[in-house]
Amino acid sequence: MKMVASQVVNTYPLSSYTFGTKEPKMEKDTSVADRLARMKVNYMKEGVRTSVEGILLVQEHNHPHILLLQIGNTFCKLPGGRLKPGENEIEGLKRKLSSKLAANSPALQPDWQIGECVAMWWRPNFETIMYPYCPPHITKPKECKKLYLVHLSEREYFAVPKNLKLLAVPLFELYDNVQRYGPVISTIPQQLSRFQFNMIQQ
Amino acid sequence: MKMVASQVVNTYPLSSYTFGTKEPKMEKDTSVADRLARMKVNYMKEGVRTSVEGILLVQEHNHPHILLLQIGNTFCKLPGGRLKPGENEIEGLKRKLSSKLAANSPALQPDWQIGECVAMWWRPNFETIMYPYCPPHITKPKECKKLYLVHLSEREYFAVPKNLKLLAVPLFELYDNVQRYGPVISTIPQQLSRFQFNMIQQ
Repeated sequence: MKMVASQVVNTYPLSSYTFGTKEPKMEKDTSVADRLARMKVNYMKEGVRTSVEGILLVQEHNHPHILLLQIGNTFCKLPGGRLKPGENEIEGLKRKLSSKLAANSPALQPDWQIGECVAMWWRPNFETIMYPYCPPHITKPKECKKLYLVHLSEREYFAVPKNLKLLAVPLFELYDNVQRYGPVISTIPQQLSRFQFNMIQQ
Repeated sequence: MKMVASQVVNTYPLSSYTFGTKEPKMEKDTSVADRLARMKVNYMKEGVRTSVEGILLVQEHNHPHILLLQIGNTFCKLPGGRLKPGENEIEGLKRKLSSKLAANSPALQPDWQIGECVAMWWRPNFETIMYPYCPPHITKPKECKKLYLVHLSEREYFAVPKNLKLLAVPLFELYDNVQRYGPVISTIPQQLSRFQFNMIQQ
């Protein structure tokens, strides 16, 4: 691996994006227990699950913000989801981003530019806990979740499912806030710290 | 920025390295208050401080470990330190790594291969708290600390100052352990999660 210079990420103001709504995208499970049970059934059929999520950056007041989907009043998640067996990660992430954030019209699809993988998390068992490494003695992890940087164009139209809210959350709100955002989302600021953000004003 | 494939980092067993001792390297300050006061004096003379630290990886039991220097009975730090005004980051990190970990003989200097910058932390004020971003409204941060991956060769000889202990600490011990290791070192597992470790057995 060779040394690379600090990488620059362009970010545009939240106000340069347009937001509409589309039909609801309901969660497949109504409880954590249901979700873990379905994960187990899928694992038996298809083996280790790979999921991919996108980190979409915007800026406000010269500080980077991340787009999160809020379900109900508290739970937040990154846009993304599970790959189909054998599906390419980049193509799968584009499919999931369109499903969660694009209008149904093919003419209004954002040009998703998938950047670097910034984090990987492993689920050793059919439980909610995940680790940023495959724990020792775990030879068959049940899921690997990969977080990719998504480079947004200067203008985009997003269509948000009616049952979800799209929030732009500043890095300083995520940092050290595991109670509110969980271990994966609350350490995104640390994973992005090596990038230099080019805040483009308009 | 273009997409890159998951990056591979070779790690060798701890047992492939040899450890000796050398003269003590005393801390310049005997208290946190002294350290912050000296930082302020240096800032007035030289402006923003840049410090560089190295993440040196080894493996044991097929799990990555990081080399940390322990001072006294509890405090751990990464090898590294402050750059001289105008000093190149990579050259400065090599100088600091040799000062902390190399024998005095020029013939025994490790071939330090500095890899990617994996994290940056900012100190907004003359206080101990640092953030993985420059906080909004801070136009003059007092310090920027950069963490670099250091690729070790298969064999090396390290000379550890007599007042310090060199520890190989597993990622699973660092993870979620801010009480023991502080915010910078305890989130190294998350920052390394995107790498694939190639555990070379011997």
